[in-house]
Amino acid sequence: MVRRSVARLSPEALDEGYALACQTAVKSDVVVSIPPQEKIERRLPTSQRVAKIEVPFPYEPAEHQTIRKYFVEIEPPSLSDNTDDLARLRRTLHAQHGLEMAHLRVDLPVLGKLAIVLREGQWKATVVLEMDTWVSPEGPPRLVDIVPGDGTASSWGVAVDIGTTSNVVYLVDLLSGRVVDTASDYNGQIARGEDVISRIIYASKGDGLSELQGLVVETINGLLSRLAERNGISPNEIYKMTVAGNSTMIHLFLGLFPESIRLEPYVTTTNHPPPVLASQLGLGINALASVDCLPGVGGYVGADITGGVFSSRMCDSQDISLFIDIGTNGEIVLGDCDWLISCACSAGPAFEGAGVQDGMRATSGAIEEVWIDDSTFEASYRVIGDEPPRGICGSGLISLLAEMFISGTMDKRGNLNLGLDTPRLREGDRGPEYVVAWAGETATGQDIVINKVDIDNLLRAKAAVYAGFSVLARSVGTDLSTVERVLIAGAFGQYLDVENAIQIGLLPDMPRHKFKYLGNTSILGAYAALLSRDARRDISELGQRMTYLELSADNTFHDEWMSALFLPHTHVSDFPSVMKLLEKGTER
Amino acid sequence: MVRRSVARLSPEALDEGYALACQTAVKSDVVVSIPPQEKIERRLPTSQRVAKIEVPFPYEPAEHQTIRKYFVEIEPPSLSDNTDDLARLRRTLHAQHGLEMAHLRVDLPVLGKLAIVLREGQWKATVVLEMDTWVSPEGPPRLVDIVPGDGTASSWGVAVDIGTTSNVVYLVDLLSGRVVDTASDYNGQIARGEDVISRIIYASKGDGLSELQGLVVETINGLLSRLAERNGISPNEIYKMTVAGNSTMIHLFLGLFPESIRLEPYVTTTNHPPPVLASQLGLGINALASVDCLPGVGGYVGADITGGVFSSRMCDSQDISLFIDIGTNGEIVLGDCDWLISCACSAGPAFEGAGVQDGMRATSGAIEEVWIDDSTFEASYRVIGDEPPRGICGSGLISLLAEMFISGTMDKRGNLNLGLDTPRLREGDRGPEYVVAWAGETATGQDIVINKVDIDNLLRAKAAVYAGFSVLARSVGTDLSTVERVLIAGAFGQYLDVENAIQIGLLPDMPRHKFKYLGNTSILGAYAALLSRDARRDISELGQRMTYLELSADNTFHDEWMSALFLPHTHVSDFPSVMKLLEKGTER
Repeated sequence: MVRRSVARLSPEALDEGYALACQTAVKSDVVVSIPPQEKIERRLPTSQRVAKIEVPFPYEPAEHQTIRKYFVEIEPPSLSDNTDDLARLRRTLHAQHGLEMAHLRVDLPVLGKLAIVLREGQWKATVVLEMDTWVSPEGPPRLVDIVPGDGTASSWGVAVDIGTTSNVVYLVDLLSGRVVDTASDYNGQIARGEDVISRIIYASKGDGLSELQGLVVETINGLLSRLAERNGISPNEIYKMTVAGNSTMIHLFLGLFPESIRLEPYVTTTNHPPPVLASQLGLGINALASVDCLPGVGGYVGADITGGVFSSRMCDSQDISLFIDIGTNGEIVLGDCDWLISCACSAGPAFEGAGVQDGMRATSGAIEEVWIDDSTFEASYRVIGDEPPRGICGSGLISLLAEMFISGTMDKRGNLNLGLDTPRLREGDRGPEYVVAWAGETATGQDIVINKVDIDNLLRAKAAVYAGFSVLARSVGTDLSTVERVLIAGAFGQYLDVENAIQIGLLPDMPRHKFKYLGNTSILGAYAALLSRDARRDISELGQRMTYLELSADNTFHDEWMSALFLPHTHVSDFPSVMKLLEKGTER
Repeated sequence: MVRRSVARLSPEALDEGYALACQTAVKSDVVVSIPPQEKIERRLPTSQRVAKIEVPFPYEPAEHQTIRKYFVEIEPPSLSDNTDDLARLRRTLHAQHGLEMAHLRVDLPVLGKLAIVLREGQWKATVVLEMDTWVSPEGPPRLVDIVPGDGTASSWGVAVDIGTTSNVVYLVDLLSGRVVDTASDYNGQIARGEDVISRIIYASKGDGLSELQGLVVETINGLLSRLAERNGISPNEIYKMTVAGNSTMIHLFLGLFPESIRLEPYVTTTNHPPPVLASQLGLGINALASVDCLPGVGGYVGADITGGVFSSRMCDSQDISLFIDIGTNGEIVLGDCDWLISCACSAGPAFEGAGVQDGMRATSGAIEEVWIDDSTFEASYRVIGDEPPRGICGSGLISLLAEMFISGTMDKRGNLNLGLDTPRLREGDRGPEYVVAWAGETATGQDIVINKVDIDNLLRAKAAVYAGFSVLARSVGTDLSTVERVLIAGAFGQYLDVENAIQIGLLPDMPRHKFKYLGNTSILGAYAALLSRDARRDISELGQRMTYLELSADNTFHDEWMSALFLPHTHVSDFPSVMKLLEKGTER
């Protein structure tokens, strides 16, 4: 039996056996049924959603490649030439491939098999060299592997994005530079906390850190073996991995204590971890493959953002761009080729469906778009997977807020207009609410609603993001009117409707052609770093060059946030297109 | 029960239950008693034999030291200065100690504890840096460890000599450069083979290699914990290890297949292994301490010889020196500051007491010196530990041969003079033999003898060494008369009587003041490399600079060896002092 909390649960819900997991103590064996809207089903896999992935720059393997394979035919030793195996190999690499081998680095496991491989292959072998790493971009090269015979026909690497929610792996043919296949899955850590803060807290208790590390490594290994099997290659042939992700995810992946990221002043152990060997992390690729994590800027502007800014090329443009990646945290970067300033606004998990009564992730059964008739106030909606709805995902919530506001169902403070003549607006257990879907239409057999508490959560979140834009712009002495492009990154961004987002004041009101969807720019950064030493150098410099503005230390942030709590904003003149739309509605 | 071979065993020995282990098949449970002369008892420990160990050069820690400790007081992070922990540490090391930290290398385990240590120590910490290694003498430095508070008052390293028979460890105070304590023990691999060849064969079967690696690591770990305990330090505080040893021992220590050393053309995997981490080998010092093996020259002239030549300073002298290290193999180096040539002569294990009926190692109960009266042909002897003798060790055998030859008990071909009037000369089971000690005097209750087979083995061994000298000298167009110093290295060399050795033609007949005992020069080389980066550079160059002459490929070696089979030598004119002695004997 369990002791259940009654907080926030309706009498009906209690009758049906609902319990708040966080408030409930288990006292004996118990069967836990998880409500259907929490069931994890995948939205379409990334590989089908993202169109063909382009090599992000003119790719010259010979120039850019970090992992290089060389076939050597070695003169066997004799009594008159009894140079040792390693020196003989170095000499041959120099003679046959013109490589400077004076300081070749060799790890013990590959040294340990050198004698066997050379003799088994009758002095013909393929040498795998890593030419440079983040920490020593000019070398010396490292002998990663040696195999008998000619194995130069293929060369594999992987780029990884460790999202708080989803992990993505690209399998890359290093000879052509192409992404050959991709795979993604939920981060195995999800069951230990939905957002970075709860993961950090989990990591700080007992063996939490190593457990979380094990879980994400397990997820990535699952993706790696799926990719290897599907493409008929051995995981041992994968000789390099680059990794992007937010700073907490990178810390957990490497087994670094993330606690200091959570506590003021929010610092990391390192924004740019050194390369490690795959075997140190238990990753299912070649044990001596190096694993390079991209550099981040700070505790809340991580390698996912540096990688994103790099792959967006905003850092090369003369025009000012605004880069945004909205998830649990909204990370924002403003700048051009001369300057870049970044910040993180803790939007909270509202846009991911958490902290909202009928919120859910963007999976099958989630309402992802809503339309409200501005005379009848009736709702229609689109559901992911075209099935009876189980809840509302982030893009659906933004769409819903926008429609409620524009239709007059809700005022600029987010108060529901209970005076309207529709049964959808009513007083619920937790105050005023609007019914999006009636019980008869839903998969749960319950009404799907949005209430005042939900709305306030969402308004606080959107205000945090917009205030971030304003503070960033002001801090460099400009305003959002100077922004030439708004670059929307991240998985959530892919599904964000710009029109709706502007209507609620989440995005600035600018000509629509200035908005551009970029998709998962984090993994594109990792992909670029995998392919090219120039890309690595640039991303590394980016990590140094991007200024980090700590919003909680900025004395204008609170005012900006307060102003942004309104729909679309206190300064309505900044939202001319929304004003025009509202005027039209009033006229009609 | 066992099936016993009768080869080479006397009827009495068979009656007593003796068996040849190598020729005997065990068919059921059996109790094996090992003859007492094989019991391992230690000669006096090295620490008591070698006088105070001198720092081998003017030692300036600040200049030479590879491991350096720095105390830092770090400005804690704040919202206005939220640099990450690692960058903050680098910045502080630069500001407070003037260190160039741009490319500091950091291993994952130390990065993993950085956040905790800095906060636990309230931003006061001791940083342990390794400034350089063999492979990258100019750095970049490596962060080996960080501990809370001020731990700069001590700094520890160890130098190790891995002999085929004995392992020695020096515990070194890196601040003063002094050897604080030493410990030695038999190499745990001994039970798997007495000499390098039998170890290589053992390593090539099944898990033999990892078993042998485990055994030597276990031996070294035993010595390390003995030293740590005796001196009240934690093994974790030992931050560097340097290792010397012959090429086979180094291969087994690192887990490298030694098979190619045994087979023509006798090459190693590498003559100069890269540094490895202590944790990679399971060594009981700080897991991130680097373990640097000294460079060798070839399969049979290893790091023990390079280290020995360095510590003998012969490579700095304008005079020609002859460096010899006689053990199972005799390694010889001839040269001066301008040139150095080396070779290895397979003397076989005769001088270590193996292949000789009553031969034994130089432990308690071994006859180590013999005198024969040249009129009565009676023998007197000295025994290690002043106890009843169990056998004859190498120095005893050389002394015995010399006395038998000079007294006329044996002729220049090694034939015993059975016509002499003494019961000590007699026809035994294995041909003519001389009784050194009667059964009543010995610990075994058996006569201790030397027979013709033993003598032939010993003559072949001494001839191989002397032929090595001759071929080396001839190969550089000189002869032994140009040699100004003979440097005798190695544990066996310590107990070698020069007079006796010249009398049998093992050493060249030169003025006695030219001979110098050096003791264990192998570990002195490791000690120098531990202390100084200049020493490491010099030893490294030495490994490159020393020419290796393969005797088996030299067409004059066989003739030289044949000439040297006689006592003292076919060319008696090369041994004037021995001739004079023989003439005296004849006159008397």
